[in-house]
Amino acid sequence: MDTEIGSGDCLAWAARDAFGTLSPYRFKRRVVGRDDVHIKITHCGVCYADVIWTRNMAGDSKYPLVPGHEIVGLVTEVGSSVKGFKVGDHAGVGTYVDSCGECEYCNDFVEVHCSKGSILTFNGLDSDGTVTKGGYSSYIIVKERYCYRIPDGYPLAMAAPLLCAGITVYTPMMRHKMNQPDKSLGVIGLGGLGHMAVKFGKAFGLNVTVFSTSESKKEAALKLLGADKFVISSDKKQMESMTNSLDFIIDTASGDHPFDPYLSLLKVGGVLVLVGFPSEVRLHPGSLSYGSRTIAGSLTGGTKETQAMLEFCAANKVYPEIELINIQYINEALERLVKRDVKYRFVIDIQNSLK
Amino acid sequence: MDTEIGSGDCLAWAARDAFGTLSPYRFKRRVVGRDDVHIKITHCGVCYADVIWTRNMAGDSKYPLVPGHEIVGLVTEVGSSVKGFKVGDHAGVGTYVDSCGECEYCNDFVEVHCSKGSILTFNGLDSDGTVTKGGYSSYIIVKERYCYRIPDGYPLAMAAPLLCAGITVYTPMMRHKMNQPDKSLGVIGLGGLGHMAVKFGKAFGLNVTVFSTSESKKEAALKLLGADKFVISSDKKQMESMTNSLDFIIDTASGDHPFDPYLSLLKVGGVLVLVGFPSEVRLHPGSLSYGSRTIAGSLTGGTKETQAMLEFCAANKVYPEIELINIQYINEALERLVKRDVKYRFVIDIQNSLK
Repeated sequence: MDTEIGSGDCLAWAARDAFGTLSPYRFKRRVVGRDDVHIKITHCGVCYADVIWTRNMAGDSKYPLVPGHEIVGLVTEVGSSVKGFKVGDHAGVGTYVDSCGECEYCNDFVEVHCSKGSILTFNGLDSDGTVTKGGYSSYIIVKERYCYRIPDGYPLAMAAPLLCAGITVYTPMMRHKMNQPDKSLGVIGLGGLGHMAVKFGKAFGLNVTVFSTSESKKEAALKLLGADKFVISSDKKQMESMTNSLDFIIDTASGDHPFDPYLSLLKVGGVLVLVGFPSEVRLHPGSLSYGSRTIAGSLTGGTKETQAMLEFCAANKVYPEIELINIQYINEALERLVKRDVKYRFVIDIQNSLK
Repeated sequence: MDTEIGSGDCLAWAARDAFGTLSPYRFKRRVVGRDDVHIKITHCGVCYADVIWTRNMAGDSKYPLVPGHEIVGLVTEVGSSVKGFKVGDHAGVGTYVDSCGECEYCNDFVEVHCSKGSILTFNGLDSDGTVTKGGYSSYIIVKERYCYRIPDGYPLAMAAPLLCAGITVYTPMMRHKMNQPDKSLGVIGLGGLGHMAVKFGKAFGLNVTVFSTSESKKEAALKLLGADKFVISSDKKQMESMTNSLDFIIDTASGDHPFDPYLSLLKVGGVLVLVGFPSEVRLHPGSLSYGSRTIAGSLTGGTKETQAMLEFCAANKVYPEIELINIQYINEALERLVKRDVKYRFVIDIQNSLK
């Protein structure tokens, strides 16, 4: 039993193989270096990436695999060179924990695009040769540069989803100047990312339309999230009534879906940003040419922008909708996530359930 | 014979059916209105659009069809309200001859995106209900707003291809700030549009790489057009050596081709602009997401930008490479265009051959 559970002072839940079932696991993390922050994890959000890698859907999973990259907690120790954090601070970690720190992208604080590759928070190869392990664990040690300050008073559980779902939609909105009031935003899909896009849209003063395949999401979209309009994407008439009306669409859908009908809803010069991962993108060139429209991809944001987003959320009271769960519920939660049965993000109560 | 050739003082060559064979034709144009400019056509460029519509490939051809939308000539009469042209001036007409003139796009001088639809130079439905007829004809009457001043001394025959091929690549280059020296440009395809993209690239001070399927184009690309690099797109090794190196790619290829290999050559934030018309665009979403890359569509430019381009070409000695032909050669020329056997644009010598 000992070999299976592992040994070390870091408690965790790990997947052992491509079945992806998570169970208790112990391991050691490195000692705190001079640039490091030691965070006792209180909460970790559950991202679809956790499904992809626990189940080896990308083909590169390294087991035992401890997922989780929406991490928040309390600082319990800092290295001698750390300036921005002290013991007791609320801190967070997102989808990457290191990068070269000296290429043009790192110099621009878009470390996610580091020329040498950023090191992912879990299932990544760390600079010491070990495989990184994520936030389904009792603590984590991360270089200061890749830790975020959670603003005072912002609920820790709610801060977690900001660190992947939140920043992933915030970044393309900022890049495409969608923080300007009265512009029109379309949001495809209403999961973890989509519901944050609606919340940011309303916080920016935009006119927000949610596109969904399911009428059942209408009330929550309009009343809970505050969208201005709700459109069933299979309803041709409703869709056509929106032709040439949107400045920007955030497409969070990871299932395969047609692109032409959505592109036709964009104004001249409009942009559809892809943040989901369908198996392919397929469209008619005229959907781009007529109207000089654009499809753009986007990953997550850099460290500077992530910190700015956290402060924006605190100042504007932007809070994700979460369902707090115990770590013991994680296998069911991942199943429900696959079935899109979550409103709108699971967050694991690490501090009270991982013991 | 009379009914077939038609009657009227405007001499032309027209296609009569979807076989697309062109032969002599006569018709009447409207009288010169107060906003109109009457242009005696000296030259007309031959665009792939002429093949598409003479052969009814878009399914909406109205016969008899007089193609041609790269038109230059001499002003022989102007309406009473015309301010910008006088008899004897060199003038040109591009791909559209009218628009509503009052929507947000017309107000911004991007009339090609007119909310009510711009009226195409040929096979379009004019405001008086007639079908527009293009530049394979002895003269044309067009509202002043949609006529361009050809700068003094610029050879008329060479000005013709600027009015579609030229502006179609100039517009996205300007929109994406590719007129800044030392940026890197990739050009896919070396036809009418592609060779102009190379010429503009060099005039802007860019580092230009041409991608072609055929080694036979190498010498001309490097020596005649002045490209910095030539890559055979089927050569995986050559392609991979360019990974993450380009700011911008202009894709002029209308044949079907993969997009993922080209997208991977873009730097973070790089843009591929589609100006050709393949039957579909198909790619892996990761080709956009990793690197926050973009595919953008583009049509041709607005009137203000077209005029600016003509002046840029005159000031910077940017001249298209043309093969001057007589109108009697047009059916062979269109066949050769289909086979891509042209360096790089046919221009019909209307004034000396259409009699």
